[in-house]
Amino acid sequence: MFQIFILAVLFFFFSSPFPSHGAVQDFCVADFMAPEGPAGYSCKMPANVTVDDFVFTGLVKGGNTSNIIKAAVTPAFAAQFPGVNGLGISMARLDLAPGGVVPLHTHPGGSEVLVVVQGSILAGFISSSANTVYMKTLKRGEIMVFPKGLLHFQVNARGITAIAFVSFSSPSPGLQILDFALFANNLPSALVEKTTFLDDAQVKKLKAVLGGTG
Amino acid sequence: MFQIFILAVLFFFFSSPFPSHGAVQDFCVADFMAPEGPAGYSCKMPANVTVDDFVFTGLVKGGNTSNIIKAAVTPAFAAQFPGVNGLGISMARLDLAPGGVVPLHTHPGGSEVLVVVQGSILAGFISSSANTVYMKTLKRGEIMVFPKGLLHFQVNARGITAIAFVSFSSPSPGLQILDFALFANNLPSALVEKTTFLDDAQVKKLKAVLGGTG
Amino acid sequence: MFQIFILAVLFFFFSSPFPSHGAVQDFCVADFMAPEGPAGYSCKMPANVTVDDFVFTGLVKGGNTSNIIKAAVTPAFAAQFPGVNGLGISMARLDLAPGGVVPLHTHPGGSEVLVVVQGSILAGFISSSANTVYMKTLKRGEIMVFPKGLLHFQVNARGITAIAFVSFSSPSPGLQILDFALFANNLPSALVEKTTFLDDAQVKKLKAVLGGTG
Amino acid sequence: MFQIFILAVLFFFFSSPFPSHGAVQDFCVADFMAPEGPAGYSCKMPANVTVDDFVFTGLVKGGNTSNIIKAAVTPAFAAQFPGVNGLGISMARLDLAPGGVVPLHTHPGGSEVLVVVQGSILAGFISSSANTVYMKTLKRGEIMVFPKGLLHFQVNARGITAIAFVSFSSPSPGLQILDFALFANNLPSALVEKTTFLDDAQVKKLKAVLGGTG
Amino acid sequence: MFQIFILAVLFFFFSSPFPSHGAVQDFCVADFMAPEGPAGYSCKMPANVTVDDFVFTGLVKGGNTSNIIKAAVTPAFAAQFPGVNGLGISMARLDLAPGGVVPLHTHPGGSEVLVVVQGSILAGFISSSANTVYMKTLKRGEIMVFPKGLLHFQVNARGITAIAFVSFSSPSPGLQILDFALFANNLPSALVEKTTFLDDAQVKKLKAVLGGTG
Amino acid sequence: MFQIFILAVLFFFFSSPFPSHGAVQDFCVADFMAPEGPAGYSCKMPANVTVDDFVFTGLVKGGNTSNIIKAAVTPAFAAQFPGVNGLGISMARLDLAPGGVVPLHTHPGGSEVLVVVQGSILAGFISSSANTVYMKTLKRGEIMVFPKGLLHFQVNARGITAIAFVSFSSPSPGLQILDFALFANNLPSALVEKTTFLDDAQVKKLKAVLGGTG
Repeated sequence: MFQIFILAVLFFFFSSPFPSHGAVQDFCVADFMAPEGPAGYSCKMPANVTVDDFVFTGLVKGGNTSNIIKAAVTPAFAAQFPGVNGLGISMARLDLAPGGVVPLHTHPGGSEVLVVVQGSILAGFISSSANTVYMKTLKRGEIMVFPKGLLHFQVNARGITAIAFVSFSSPSPGLQILDFALFANNLPSALVEKTTFLDDAQVKKLKAVLGGTG
Repeated sequence: MFQIFILAVLFFFFSSPFPSHGAVQDFCVADFMAPEGPAGYSCKMPANVTVDDFVFTGLVKGGNTSNIIKAAVTPAFAAQFPGVNGLGISMARLDLAPGGVVPLHTHPGGSEVLVVVQGSILAGFISSSANTVYMKTLKRGEIMVFPKGLLHFQVNARGITAIAFVSFSSPSPGLQILDFALFANNLPSALVEKTTFLDDAQVKKLKAVLGGTG
Repeated sequence: MFQIFILAVLFFFFSSPFPSHGAVQDFCVADFMAPEGPAGYSCKMPANVTVDDFVFTGLVKGGNTSNIIKAAVTPAFAAQFPGVNGLGISMARLDLAPGGVVPLHTHPGGSEVLVVVQGSILAGFISSSANTVYMKTLKRGEIMVFPKGLLHFQVNARGITAIAFVSFSSPSPGLQILDFALFANNLPSALVEKTTFLDDAQVKKLKAVLGGTG
Repeated sequence: MFQIFILAVLFFFFSSPFPSHGAVQDFCVADFMAPEGPAGYSCKMPANVTVDDFVFTGLVKGGNTSNIIKAAVTPAFAAQFPGVNGLGISMARLDLAPGGVVPLHTHPGGSEVLVVVQGSILAGFISSSANTVYMKTLKRGEIMVFPKGLLHFQVNARGITAIAFVSFSSPSPGLQILDFALFANNLPSALVEKTTFLDDAQVKKLKAVLGGTG
Repeated sequence: MFQIFILAVLFFFFSSPFPSHGAVQDFCVADFMAPEGPAGYSCKMPANVTVDDFVFTGLVKGGNTSNIIKAAVTPAFAAQFPGVNGLGISMARLDLAPGGVVPLHTHPGGSEVLVVVQGSILAGFISSSANTVYMKTLKRGEIMVFPKGLLHFQVNARGITAIAFVSFSSPSPGLQILDFALFANNLPSALVEKTTFLDDAQVKKLKAVLGGTG
Repeated sequence: MFQIFILAVLFFFFSSPFPSHGAVQDFCVADFMAPEGPAGYSCKMPANVTVDDFVFTGLVKGGNTSNIIKAAVTPAFAAQFPGVNGLGISMARLDLAPGGVVPLHTHPGGSEVLVVVQGSILAGFISSSANTVYMKTLKRGEIMVFPKGLLHFQVNARGITAIAFVSFSSPSPGLQILDFALFANNLPSALVEKTTFLDDAQVKKLKAVLGGTG
């Protein structure tokens, strides 16, 4: 014991074998006030980082499903959860009321894995090479992966609210919902029709529902 | 001159200062007979590589535009052009006859730049964050970039055939054409309708055109 | 309607505007029989891929927690779940019986996010720069991120079994459990002591528990 | 139709199923006024981005070829074309008057594909492993790939001006022209001679042509 | 010679075939005053960069080994050596006095190669899959690689001071020393014990030596 | 102690909390007999890996410097040192006899750091943007970084043999020696002259020295 005491004294009085690292960081908690770059947000000063930067409570409750799709997507991307910035991962929560649907969408920036934690979900994606559909009804505890950038969907497969947690291979995977991209903006109807083969009546009907113009 | 001769003799008779590198490669020309991995195709043995592996003549002529979209996309991806395997880049040629359209599509694996070399093209993409449409009519020599994974389109903007060359930030960027993903496979009509809000008649009409079932 | 019929005929009789892509893939389902490379396993032939390659049911039930740590880690890495190969993501399930602990460990290859789906978990990680501890008790639905390669732990924080799903920013993140690395192999006790400052008795006691020799 | 109206009302009065993403971006248009990092320029605020950030007209006309090499290279790298920042791709235009030459050079940061759109070009690169030369005369519409970092050249192969568009696997591939690196700076002649085996007269002659000193 | 003069005149009076690149950079020397991002520090303006940014003299002398481990680790990471920022590499120097030890540690962000330049070092790492120990006594000039993120150690294997240079596959590989992570912070002893199986007396003894609390 | 024994029994008889990982690997030692891909060589089966795969003794002695450049470069790239495959790092040894020179060269695939361990070396690189030369005479223990893909050189700066170890940010960085690329192959003299501005006599003289034809 005395020997250890001596060692401790030596350790603190003579020199530390390891340098203090200054600004070297194991992580890069997002600083939303500083510039953003192609690799993500700038980093908060480590001295200002606390455990709460690495914890997110916004997925405890599901989003409001009283809407047209009877579903809600609640993201924990870097923009909401600064601790994942630069770490190559993020999450979201899906809530699907009975009859709920997460419509066809892509994540331009990453792959997704989904785990069902309540209810049952019919999930699927469409490959680009042969337009093959890969879909399956997933029960509680089952997981499915959706490769990067491909169109996919999730549909409540039973009469009770379904809940899933999804994770992404990027802190900012993006979310492009097909219907919103087509019908919720000012892309002229004639152009939507020309680039989708949809009928004029169909396009105008959905533009009216989703708030599009043109 | 004599001195140089002596040096040359020394060089070849004593030792080379640099080792022969064996299998070390500057490139990895695709060997379609060997296994493919997440990073691309296996490499041909360097001894079997010739300049023709790095040259592709398949874009000299445009594809046949006598089809429903009056357009053709001719790829020079790693699957067609083995020299780009592993090099982070590939190309394709677009031909749009008068009235031609490259319908809404995404490249799950890469960003795209387009240069118009004949005619005029109205090109655009839709961002995911606010569904903003970025579109412009491009003349000969003008270039436009389409960020990775976002829905985009190209439409002939004049009365003559338009030609463009497009490049991708991946040797295998993929190509998911929206209409084919929705209507050219066995994804049940009811599910298409549920995940797109399209009407049943619309879905069935386009499934008939594009060869889909269900 | 007649016009559409004509278009359909044109479409199938004249030419397709898009090539068939041959071996081009949106994914790379692991083929465990072919060589593995630095980027992951070789890819199964697309023709042999089914939806079951993208679905994993091994996390439906928790692992057996009748063990020394009263806990179980059930991975869905590429080695167990071939569909995630090459996609930059994977998952695992944690089960912690009352008193259960996932001891200090690292994932050399990726960052982790954890979501609690039952019970409560005290989780934490230690940064490298100043050895700062970031830890918090997480309730159901709360998520926490553990930056790549850092030591972290999870401890059951209540009297009931806790369950969490964790996701990783790599299909093969690895798992190095500190105690197993120190005490469950043939690393000589003298060397463990020299490189950890642990006492000889302590090292030998844990080597006996964990099956180490030397 | 009335049903759709009701849905639309529900949609806008109750809740949106998808969050507004704040600063989440699909792209990172270069902001030349903010700091640059290893991954590229900082991003412009999305609200300030317009379609003109994604379109570049500087390649419509070729550069002036009234110079020593009878050729011009016009880049559309991130420094000129802010829309490609962070997207892994960029372009340039080559103009080679009769007798024109793009001398031996490398792009330290990326691979290149070239498509001839007018005239004919003799292009080649030299591999590092065995100093093998891969070269070919390319006609209009033919493409060639030059692997990352290797010395390559382009020479007008016919009596008329040749034009090519080249794309790179990086938004900032760099451009190191061999002659300029050797002779257009203050690297002392003695050092050039020692590290290239070139004769003193040769080095001094080219330093005089290219404006070098020392 | 006269012809060359004419060419030179043409070159400087008519036009340069190559543009000046503005802010395009081959490197990104760290600017410690600007924001840091996930890819590293912001870049110094090229005009302010000098050769001294690319040279580091801090490894000429070894660190002080008069400490508990009779060893010193002197880093040349991006935080100390701004020239390596963004370049995927960095270095450090190890000095091990007789009896010296670099205790078990990991580098969360990169792989390491070590070359012995004086004395002899017993070095080893522990794999995660089967806890296999790979270790060997290295003599002068021998090199060893330690894969990313795995626990490893270096011990002086002879009676004289040993010196090694180590390189990393990252400009900021990090350094997590096991004993410091466990015993040199405020992680409560009870938690250390629970997550390591170490005895209470052992934990408290080492916390006392290394300055930990709790 | 008895309690520990009971725990050990429980541990081994009931269940392990951690799965055996099968083919999951922390490393990917090169298997030179299996296919190579864009990310490197295929991996040896872990069961066949030994510590000797991670140790390389080929740099203990310098290469033979009795040659035209009075220098030798001895690589420990993945092709020579299979343990670095996939790990993002490799090394080489430089020996420069008095008057020795490592002529101008690039590494197409990676950045380099150099540490002088004997003698003194004048080292430098040339940037691409403004052809700026960054060079300095390095003494023992001093280190310098050479950014990826740029031309650089090393020259013995004193009357004694100099030795340096260099590390690269890639397991296969490549090595393109300018003189060999220009003069040691069958690139026709006329083409060398056209793409370098060198005189015919100069080109033919060096082709004769270095074994080139054409």
